Amino acid sequence: MVNRQSAILDLPHDRESRPGMVVGIDIGGTNTDIGLVTRGGDCLARKRLATRDYPTAEAFADGLARTILELLADREIRTLAGVGVGAPNGNAFRGTIEHAPNLKWKGVIPLAKWLHRRVLCPIHLDNDANAAAMGEMLYGGARGLRDFVMVTLGTGLGSGVVIDGKLVRGHDGFAGELGHTVVMPGGRPCGCGRRGCLETYVSVTGLIATVIDLLDQTWAQPSRLEKSRDSLNGKLIAAAAEAGDPIAELAFRRTGHMLALGLANAAAITNPEAIVLAGGLAKAEALLLEPTRAALADCLHNLYRGKLRISVSKLQADNAGLLGAAASVWTTAPAVW
Amino acid sequence: MVNRQSAILDLPHDRESRPGMVVGIDIGGTNTDIGLVTRGGDCLARKRLATRDYPTAEAFADGLARTILELLADREIRTLAGVGVGAPNGNAFRGTIEHAPNLKWKGVIPLAKWLHRRVLCPIHLDNDANAAAMGEMLYGGARGLRDFVMVTLGTGLGSGVVIDGKLVRGHDGFAGELGHTVVMPGGRPCGCGRRGCLETYVSVTGLIATVIDLLDQTWAQPSRLEKSRDSLNGKLIAAAAEAGDPIAELAFRRTGHMLALGLANAAAITNPEAIVLAGGLAKAEALLLEPTRAALADCLHNLYRGKLRISVSKLQADNAGLLGAAASVWTTAPAVW
Repeated sequence: MVNRQSAILDLPHDRESRPGMVVGIDIGGTNTDIGLVTRGGDCLARKRLATRDYPTAEAFADGLARTILELLADREIRTLAGVGVGAPNGNAFRGTIEHAPNLKWKGVIPLAKWLHRRVLCPIHLDNDANAAAMGEMLYGGARGLRDFVMVTLGTGLGSGVVIDGKLVRGHDGFAGELGHTVVMPGGRPCGCGRRGCLETYVSVTGLIATVIDLLDQTWAQPSRLEKSRDSLNGKLIAAAAEAGDPIAELAFRRTGHMLALGLANAAAITNPEAIVLAGGLAKAEALLLEPTRAALADCLHNLYRGKLRISVSKLQADNAGLLGAAASVWTTAPAVW
Repeated sequence: MVNRQSAILDLPHDRESRPGMVVGIDIGGTNTDIGLVTRGGDCLARKRLATRDYPTAEAFADGLARTILELLADREIRTLAGVGVGAPNGNAFRGTIEHAPNLKWKGVIPLAKWLHRRVLCPIHLDNDANAAAMGEMLYGGARGLRDFVMVTLGTGLGSGVVIDGKLVRGHDGFAGELGHTVVMPGGRPCGCGRRGCLETYVSVTGLIATVIDLLDQTWAQPSRLEKSRDSLNGKLIAAAAEAGDPIAELAFRRTGHMLALGLANAAAITNPEAIVLAGGLAKAEALLLEPTRAALADCLHNLYRGKLRISVSKLQADNAGLLGAAASVWTTAPAVW
């Protein structure tokens, strides 16, 4: 193990002369994917950790480092250009994960520093939605786009804003929190402590809450979702909607309508040419995209009407975050601590 | 006149060798200011036109050209680096004014092209709020800031978004329409045809509407504004609030609260370090700033709390737009048509 770490230590750190192999890490609340990725965006090998199995963030960093070294050993790879990490509430400036509601390790976690101590090559850590935007721009459907917004729909709603070909990080590294724009003042309570945030409506969590709301309304039509109201998930609701269940269909339409409200506001601030949706909910393309497009036709300012494309990520859902994280090695400066 | 135009035609068009004098034009719904401005931001001379006196946009372009030539003749200036124009709904990419609700000339007006035909030097046309952001960055209180949002409060609400030291124009030149983000779905009708836009609450027009709403509510306390309810304006309301009129004070508090909602959403998208307010309403610093700051403390996401400064433009209100428009000659490419 020590030998292998030394091999990595021998890496030339100058970016121009770095070899073309990187490791991409996509940290999620449930699973963490670690993959060996070429500069061209091919994932040669991947492993998965159960994020919740690690009682402390230090133990998690140990697990990540061990997995990276295993991936390299399996392929007898001795040089690595860097490790790119996409993490919820990741801060690219500081290489930290800060107060992530979906991870059990609280506070500010200096993961880039900890990983660097273990694998000794440059670590590029970023917000997971930013990493997805980067992956989409380099390898996915956003190739050639200069101004777009990437929206990732999972447990929450993440976003990465690209302006003039560059990812917007903002003054403190926390740009692109579209999920925490308020679309309904006084609306649903959000994990951030406020009310009416976009992600309380547009996310798997939001979709489930909408279905429960609809089931609770006495005028609602009978629904096959009634019997699974305590164990709802995105797949169940999508399957019901595809089978014509009126409550599930209505829930998707309402979700699309709220998404359109949020996108219309984002469009008024950065005037993108496209919105790219990714993540579990976006897979249900016709279910979510059609109501979103229909609602946007109403709620977009006329300066932007007919000029804003909405599409779904072209990257395989399982790989998007990982490839994006890997790509950050080529496109961003490593974290500094 | 023809001779003077020829003199301008002799200008070296290469930016590096251009002389240091420019003309800045600030087009407003009521008045248009035209000033002779040095590279250092000193306004040496200025003239004013009544915008509404011109029945057609062509006649207005004639008036602008005549005034530019007069300003040059008065000072015996024969060379000009360019003309910078700040206009409502100005599009920097195309040099056009597009569907400006506050001007009586409708449709798309190719003002940069028309002006260029008349004065023959490079014309830089931009949105008026973008021009103000540029002026603030070069000559005002935003010197040294890399990420900020300029908000101009007048008849409407304009904004210019600066990211990493650059003005964001967006894919089609219409970024920075913060006034048309919806903060209250189903709220007040807006000139853009939708409802609940920020500018229907936060602008002189919005403030007047809020006062009228409050006067109409039977529980409201007596107000000195009651007798002038048909001739309300920003100055009257500010004076009443400063004299302790409860309706006027409450109207400013509500305006500040709505502004905070809009700013919190903008902060979540671009994570700026500062918001700079300009225009008539911002002059009432204590009246508007204090309630805005108080409301922001509640409605800003905790990632940004304590990290977002709110300040008022350091430029003289009468000069901000003009200096900003002039500055665009030094900082942006001329319009192309």
